[in-house]
Amino acid sequence: MAVTLLQTTVSDACCAPTSSREPLGASEADSLAHTLKAIADPTRLRLVSIIAASTEGEVCVCDLTDPVGLSQPTVSHHLKVLVDAGILSREKRGTWAYYSLVPGGLSSLATQVAGV
Amino acid sequence: MAVTLLQTTVSDACCAPTSSREPLGASEADSLAHTLKAIADPTRLRLVSIIAASTEGEVCVCDLTDPVGLSQPTVSHHLKVLVDAGILSREKRGTWAYYSLVPGGLSSLATQVAGV
Repeated sequence: MAVTLLQTTVSDACCAPTSSREPLGASEADSLAHTLKAIADPTRLRLVSIIAASTEGEVCVCDLTDPVGLSQPTVSHHLKVLVDAGILSREKRGTWAYYSLVPGGLSSLATQVAGV
Repeated sequence: MAVTLLQTTVSDACCAPTSSREPLGASEADSLAHTLKAIADPTRLRLVSIIAASTEGEVCVCDLTDPVGLSQPTVSHHLKVLVDAGILSREKRGTWAYYSLVPGGLSSLATQVAGV
């Protein structure tokens, strides 16, 4: 992708900032902001944290309500936001839904934030 | 910090999720969400990106308005949110303020998000 951030001529090159790499474009920034907003919520961070810390790699929604002290519909709403953002995946088995981290979802986000 | 997420007895240990590490506590999650919200905005991501990409390591506020297409008061507001969140630092020299990344600010955020 070749996007020129600032077009400079030789005469004014002295005063414009020079870039060592390509800054985020508007659409990339929109998309990244959308994903970051999904995780920038205390309850959602705790849900992701509990799932990330589980030795099984997945947690039943029935085991996520007590730790965060919220009702199951509220917890399910937060989990849906995280699934829609590509951070969690959901698998329904019998009565319950089980949630796990999307492999690479969080680390890709971290790379985009730290690598911008 | 020793916080027990779920207290289980031997009899119900079979059904409770087991944790391989300590999940985020409520206050840690609040603090991390606050910082993530500061950066979860398309304009602020672009400002951070332009500063991160500059070869000088710092950019004058006067050079940040054109790339994002916003007025200087609006850009200054976004920059203040990023300074308050510990992501950018600000140095006033003469008429203008210059912004640079706080060393380790973004990578610490990324570690906290990816390491939860």
